[in-house]
Order: sequence, then C-alpha cells, then structure tokens
Amino acid sequence: MFRPQIKVVDCTIRDGGLMNKSNFSLELVRDVYKAVCDAGVDIIELGYRNSKKMFSVDEYGPWRFCDEDNLRKVVDGIKSDKTKIAVMQDAHKAIAEDILPKEKSVVDMIRIATYVKDIDKAIRLANNATDKGYEATINVMSISVALERELDEALQQIQEETKIIACYVVDSFGALYSEDIDFFVDKYKKYLKNKEVGVHCHNHQQLGFANTIAGIIRGANYLDGTLYGLGRAAGNCPLELLISFLKNPKFDIRPLLDIIGKKILPLNKEIYWGYAVPYMLTGVLNRHPDVAMKQLEMPDESPEKNDFLKFYEKLTEEQTED
Amino acid sequence: MFRPQIKVVDCTIRDGGLMNKSNFSLELVRDVYKAVCDAGVDIIELGYRNSKKMFSVDEYGPWRFCDEDNLRKVVDGIKSDKTKIAVMQDAHKAIAEDILPKEKSVVDMIRIATYVKDIDKAIRLANNATDKGYEATINVMSISVALERELDEALQQIQEETKIIACYVVDSFGALYSEDIDFFVDKYKKYLKNKEVGVHCHNHQQLGFANTIAGIIRGANYLDGTLYGLGRAAGNCPLELLISFLKNPKFDIRPLLDIIGKKILPLNKEIYWGYAVPYMLTGVLNRHPDVAMKQLEMPDESPEKNDFLKFYEKLTEEQTED
Repeated sequence: MFRPQIKVVDCTIRDGGLMNKSNFSLELVRDVYKAVCDAGVDIIELGYRNSKKMFSVDEYGPWRFCDEDNLRKVVDGIKSDKTKIAVMQDAHKAIAEDILPKEKSVVDMIRIATYVKDIDKAIRLANNATDKGYEATINVMSISVALERELDEALQQIQEETKIIACYVVDSFGALYSEDIDFFVDKYKKYLKNKEVGVHCHNHQQLGFANTIAGIIRGANYLDGTLYGLGRAAGNCPLELLISFLKNPKFDIRPLLDIIGKKILPLNKEIYWGYAVPYMLTGVLNRHPDVAMKQLEMPDESPEKNDFLKFYEKLTEEQTED
Repeated sequence: MFRPQIKVVDCTIRDGGLMNKSNFSLELVRDVYKAVCDAGVDIIELGYRNSKKMFSVDEYGPWRFCDEDNLRKVVDGIKSDKTKIAVMQDAHKAIAEDILPKEKSVVDMIRIATYVKDIDKAIRLANNATDKGYEATINVMSISVALERELDEALQQIQEETKIIACYVVDSFGALYSEDIDFFVDKYKKYLKNKEVGVHCHNHQQLGFANTIAGIIRGANYLDGTLYGLGRAAGNCPLELLISFLKNPKFDIRPLLDIIGKKILPLNKEIYWGYAVPYMLTGVLNRHPDVAMKQLEMPDESPEKNDFLKFYEKLTEEQTED
C-alpha cells in the first residue's frame, strides 16, 4: 500500500552543486531533468536562485543562480507537467526581487533554506514566493544544532505567518539517528497543522535512506533524494533506493538506473561524495562536514589523508577547547 | 544509557574473506586482531573452519580453514582476554571432527552458518561445539527467502535441541527493511526463551547499520559488524559506526579508525565492496548478490559494466521466466 500524499523531490543538481560550485554542464542538467521526469518523480530542484551580489558569477556556475533563460534551456523540448520545478533560496544569501511573478517563470516551487536564527528572513522570502504565485517550503538546516527553544518559536511563526506547503527537517550534518527523526517530525506535526513535514537526510553515518524511511513511518510526506546520493559530503538519501522502497506505481526506476550508470557515476572521478570516515566522524560529533571535506581534498599521496586517528584527535581536541 | 548485555562481533576477516577466498596476509589478520582487541570489541571472528575436503587448500587461503597453528600465529604476543575468538562453520561444508576439544584450542566460540533447510546439520555441529566446551551460535542465512513454516520449525528445534547462546537473523541479500528486522527479531524471541538474538546485516540498500540499530531497539544483543563494512558484495554494518553508536564506555573507536585508514582502505584497490547499483538491485529484488558481483567484476572499459538498466532488465526478465 502506498501513501498518495507522498511527494518525492530530486535535488541532485542543487545539493550536488555544493560539491562543484554548481558547475554542471547544461547537457548534464538536461539529462538529469529528463530522467527524473521520465521516472515520474514529483519535483526536481534545479539549483539555487541565490543573489549575484553574494556569489561571484565568475566563480559559481549557472545553477547557483538559475536564471530563467538557463532554466528554459534545461526544459526545452522535455518539459513534463507531472514533475514540478523547484529552486532554492538561501534565507541569508538571496533576495526577494530575484523571484519573478509565477506566470513569467518555469519554476513552480521556491524552497527557502534557513538556519533557525534566520527564520524571519526565511519567512519573508517564503511569503514573497507565495504572494507571487509559487508553492513554497521552508527547510530548516543544521537542525541537529538548533536550540530547541528557538526551533519551537520558529515553527510557531511558520504556522502563523506563512502559507508554505511543507516545512523540512534538514539533517545537514548527518548526525541524526532514527529516534531523532521521530522526535523532530513529531515536533513539526505538533506546530504545523495544515502543512506537510519534509525530511532531507545526509548520509554521513550511512543513515540517509534509513532516516528517510523513519520520516515516512512518522508521517513526513515530502522526501528529498539525489541520484546515487550525489550531494554535499557523504551525500544524500539515494533517489534510486527511495523510489524502489515506495510502492506508488507511478514511479519508474529505470530512467534513474540508466542515468546513474551513464552520467552520474562518471562524475565520481572529479567530485568525491559518499561515505568516508572523515564524514562519519563529523556526523558522529555533530559537526559541519567542512573540515572533513578539506581532509578528503588532500592529495592521495599525502600521508595525513588517511590518518583518520589523527583527524579524530584533532576534531575532538578542538571540541574540548570550545 | 548502554545495554551491558550487548556483544559486538567483528567479522572483517570472515565475511571479507568471501571477497578474496580468505586470502588475507597473516600480517593483516594480526593487525585487525590487535585493533579489535584494543577497541574492546567483545568477539572477533577470524575466519571459517570449513572442511579441506570441500574447499581446495590451493585455491582458498588459510582463513577458510583456521588451523589451530595459524590462529596461534595470529594471537601470538597480542592475545587479549577481553576479546573472544570465534570461527564459523558452514553447516553444509564443515565437519565435526575439525573442532578440537576447547582446552586444545585458542577458539572460544563456534558460529554455525546455515540455511533453514540445513538446520539439522547445523544443530549437530552446534551441539558438537558445545559438547566440546565452546560457546556456539546458529546463524540463519538468507532469511529473506526462508519459508516461514520451515523457519518456525527450525527455531523450535533450536530451542529444544541446542545449548547455543545466540541465534542470528542473517540478511545475506541485504533485502530487509527495518520493519522486517522487527518481525524476525520478534519471532526469534518468541521461540528462543533462554538464548540471545543476533543480527547480521548487509548493506546492499545502505541499511546495514540502520537495520542493526533496528535490531538493537527490538532487543537483539549479538551484533555483527566489519571494519569499513568489508564483506560480501555491498558489505556489512560498518563496525566503526556501530561502536560510535553504542554508548558502552568500554569501547574505544580509535584503534578502529587507525587501522581502517592504514590497512583496510588500501584493500579497496583489489577488493570491490560497498554500495553499488547492481548490489542495490539484487537487494531490492531479494536475490543472491552473485550476479551483481559478476557484473562488477567486468573490466572498467566494458560498456556493459555500468549499463544498470540492462542489468536490471536482465534480472527481472529472469525472474518472470521462473
């Protein structure tokens, strides 16, 4: 038995773009878009619409900004009415004016990523999006380090001040166990009466998929995944696993299998994502994965690269200095 | 709060040996043994004690047989009283006479791996082990394809006819979800009144660790893991994740981190284990991973190697022919 309310969101290009400054080729983005549409996935997130005042257009690729003309190049000749298009705005790195009225855009949904502390900025951007005709979500990042009092207040505000369709538990650090997912989904449901709950899980402890299932069992209906888990650090819940788990007959896993082998796996030569001990350690220690990413960027010949004990001692030494 | 009854078993050499015909160097096995002892892990499984009549000593390495003199070379100068030594016998590929009386052996525990259909052989070998003074377990393999009536009967027999300390749920195909783990652990506990339940999970769907946690929550107290997940196909529950999850202060993760970076990761150049789409597909389809292992053994330059759609079509075509 499947749950028809469940919406699956592919964020391959958006979250994967955190590993290569959103520098995917147009051809790849079109291929991903086509595969995700053919698979019947509900929503695809094609990147960020962040501000060019805060990100250099020389340094970052087109999917950090998702200009309308670039998005039209992606969907040209492929566009499917079954798969909605989303872009993400970072609450602290995006501006309302970059969002056109819905009728002038191929975008259907704006997802606002925010830390708890930036919730007022997030609400303003979310309301900007809904006022302009879009569906909107608020995705609360780094939730494993949110202060509970602040989170409670933010959820209360989201309930009272927005018309978003879903609010996400985002385990940016890959630090949560299933019982934590239960806790957060329960909390969200307590505050958010007419909004769905979403889960966006990272794989630092190989729990990206398992925690997404935990979310489903607890009632989350917005589920994020990426092809072969491509995403920041250890990556995300693999979309192919999620689709194979969900029983809704509208999904077809075959286009996903095809593109993973032909287009996503080859990226692994340039972009290192997936389970690795440094990521696991930042997950266990509930830390941002940036230090682990630096560790893994060391050249292979560096004797320190795989000295995980030294890395661990350094991480925990820094912690005791706090 | 930790549960003192929990026993962690490292099976790196035993399960990893399924990927290289048990051909690890003595040096590596000693290094693994030392790290596992230093980490305070309860039990280490150093390989199989299978019959030389059924495995060629020319083709298979020493850890398929675990002769006493080889085991003594492993523990020489390292032996820890805190970490018990186990070897595995396959119910259909081992003989009782290969087990010496306990007082003549460095082994503490004999684990009998069996399919449900071979349960009478398994019970005979388990009783041989307990009669000779060892602790024994029975590990029911490929449980995701066991007929429930046969499994019920086997568990009843194990309860009535053996003195084993633990009986395992073994998800050889990596096919189970957490709700399946719940189901099997509950069933085992119903039949096995004075024996512990164990879980041995594979990672084909990236659920090896998550399903081990599910087992813990449901009351399983014998937990298998391997260093960096080294084991058949997609590998096992990673020991480093399991140890970091368990809160028993007797464990020290540092020796495990050290050996993973220095000795286990380098094996990845010769032995391909870990998550891969072909393994995921055999997991999803509840099939033995042997076909996926063949797929992944193809040379990199073969265009079929990463044609996962074709692989999937072949797998499902074969299934409809059944």
